[in-house]
Amino acid sequence: MIKTAIALAHPNIAFIKYWGDKDSDLRIPANGSISMNLDSLYSRTEVTFDSSFEKDELILDGQDPGEKAVKRVTRFLDHVRLMAGIPNFARVSSENNFPTGSGIASSASAFAALSLAASTAAGLELDEAALSRLARRGSGSACRSVPAGFVEWQAGQDDESSYAFSIGPRDHWELIDCIAIVSQEHKGIGSQDGHLLAETSLVQKIRVVDTPRRLDICRQAILNRDFEAFAEVVELDSNLMHAVMMTSQPQLYYWQPATLGVMQAVSEWRKSGTLVCFTIDAGPNVHVITLEESSPKVIADLLQIPGVSKVLVSRPGTRVRLVSE
Amino acid sequence: MIKTAIALAHPNIAFIKYWGDKDSDLRIPANGSISMNLDSLYSRTEVTFDSSFEKDELILDGQDPGEKAVKRVTRFLDHVRLMAGIPNFARVSSENNFPTGSGIASSASAFAALSLAASTAAGLELDEAALSRLARRGSGSACRSVPAGFVEWQAGQDDESSYAFSIGPRDHWELIDCIAIVSQEHKGIGSQDGHLLAETSLVQKIRVVDTPRRLDICRQAILNRDFEAFAEVVELDSNLMHAVMMTSQPQLYYWQPATLGVMQAVSEWRKSGTLVCFTIDAGPNVHVITLEESSPKVIADLLQIPGVSKVLVSRPGTRVRLVSE
Repeated sequence: MIKTAIALAHPNIAFIKYWGDKDSDLRIPANGSISMNLDSLYSRTEVTFDSSFEKDELILDGQDPGEKAVKRVTRFLDHVRLMAGIPNFARVSSENNFPTGSGIASSASAFAALSLAASTAAGLELDEAALSRLARRGSGSACRSVPAGFVEWQAGQDDESSYAFSIGPRDHWELIDCIAIVSQEHKGIGSQDGHLLAETSLVQKIRVVDTPRRLDICRQAILNRDFEAFAEVVELDSNLMHAVMMTSQPQLYYWQPATLGVMQAVSEWRKSGTLVCFTIDAGPNVHVITLEESSPKVIADLLQIPGVSKVLVSRPGTRVRLVSE
Repeated sequence: MIKTAIALAHPNIAFIKYWGDKDSDLRIPANGSISMNLDSLYSRTEVTFDSSFEKDELILDGQDPGEKAVKRVTRFLDHVRLMAGIPNFARVSSENNFPTGSGIASSASAFAALSLAASTAAGLELDEAALSRLARRGSGSACRSVPAGFVEWQAGQDDESSYAFSIGPRDHWELIDCIAIVSQEHKGIGSQDGHLLAETSLVQKIRVVDTPRRLDICRQAILNRDFEAFAEVVELDSNLMHAVMMTSQPQLYYWQPATLGVMQAVSEWRKSGTLVCFTIDAGPNVHVITLEESSPKVIADLLQIPGVSKVLVSRPGTRVRLVSE
């Protein structure tokens, strides 16, 4: 008997970042984090379990993604098979509506969509927390793409306690993420490997110890729609993560020259009264967060900055969901 | 009776940085530091005390530098007058052989030269430690421009114990500092004000606590002429200081986009086997440290990087000294 399911999930942008693990196998993070799903970007993932398959197969954007990616997905599917008590291999086909290598990380949306599609196709009915925990095993930040809108991932201590939940629906606050694309290049060091280096930085320990304070400020700023408090903690948190990266051994540099150009322009714009701030993940592109009314000018001004090739625009996105086609 | 003295001093580049004070009035630093004097750059300062002068006068590069600079120098001269027991006002004329606003900080060389010229003109004969302590009151890092060659500033606890001494003469190691000039602009926030913000960063405390370890590594690397150990600790230390700056409240950004371009190029060159590393003070220019034999290629390659307008080259410099003309 053939069982198929298709799911769609959005990537998310972290306002309080995840960097470093307490347990890298289970992806129990060193600290909690807060993010927003990005509705204009998505991964669509189809999973079929069939007793006639002789191995797991993976197609990403129509292509064979290579052995490393297949191993990662097989390990994830092994866990789903164990949970569901089924022996069958699977065929997985996943597509992103944003180009791979555009500098937008696809692992969060891909593993969130895979979690729902694979668990459904395997006959499981997981509640949101269980689905978030499952997604976390594939890629830490994927657990935040499971719930809707504005999301907090409680770090927890173990597999049971480490999952994400919504702290506000997508229409809670009309933030706009204007993603300034400054590089189409693949990153030198993927975030999977980067997480393992976090502990080699002096800065990581103090960043982690201070995180509950920053989480409180960020959560309250979102709940109160207080852009100024939000902007300050979001930029501080981004800079703290990049401070860890740049003081790791070896040092990790995710910023490009144009990244810094955008950061400095955004700082100037905010000083001049525009409600705008930046945050940067493990890559060179700059997520420039603003409000609906300011966004046309912000987008136009970003496109004037040397090195910015385009701007992707996204509003808060909903939760992972099943689709029929 | 007219008393005049002229002194010449070099700026220095810090390998282990000074950032933040235990006592900002006395400029007792939060942590010790290590530097090298730069022989191709200098400040030349002439001081005359005369009972006929009715106030202190200051000329910098032939111009009136404004009230703020005069106040700073007068406060410094008050201390010299107190030490020497003289009441006279002074005329101070100082010139740099590098353009003001070239992004090379002149306060270290200017106050080192002023310390020797003013104390001599006031009739004092200070030993090196006392001269270094005096220079420290004018500008913290000026204390490191008093002794020769490779210099360590022991943080100390009070005015008596906080001064710099040579850990190696200028010919100890043939390092070359290739200063990639990426901006002629004046800094947004001077280092005087920046020091006061250090404590608002989470990162400062851990940076300071760890400094004795980095000082040991750097000192040993210099004494053993071990470039690889030197390069690693110098880049880490520079990134740690900028991590403090970028996580201060308000955040301080001294890097420009081209600064990051040079940093990343230098990292690549070292990975390819060139003995080269970078360090960046409270400004956008990049001090690219290499050895004599590698310097022609490093300079040529630096000039190819977008945003690098010129490269100043310097070998290790000697101590502050009196000159006759």
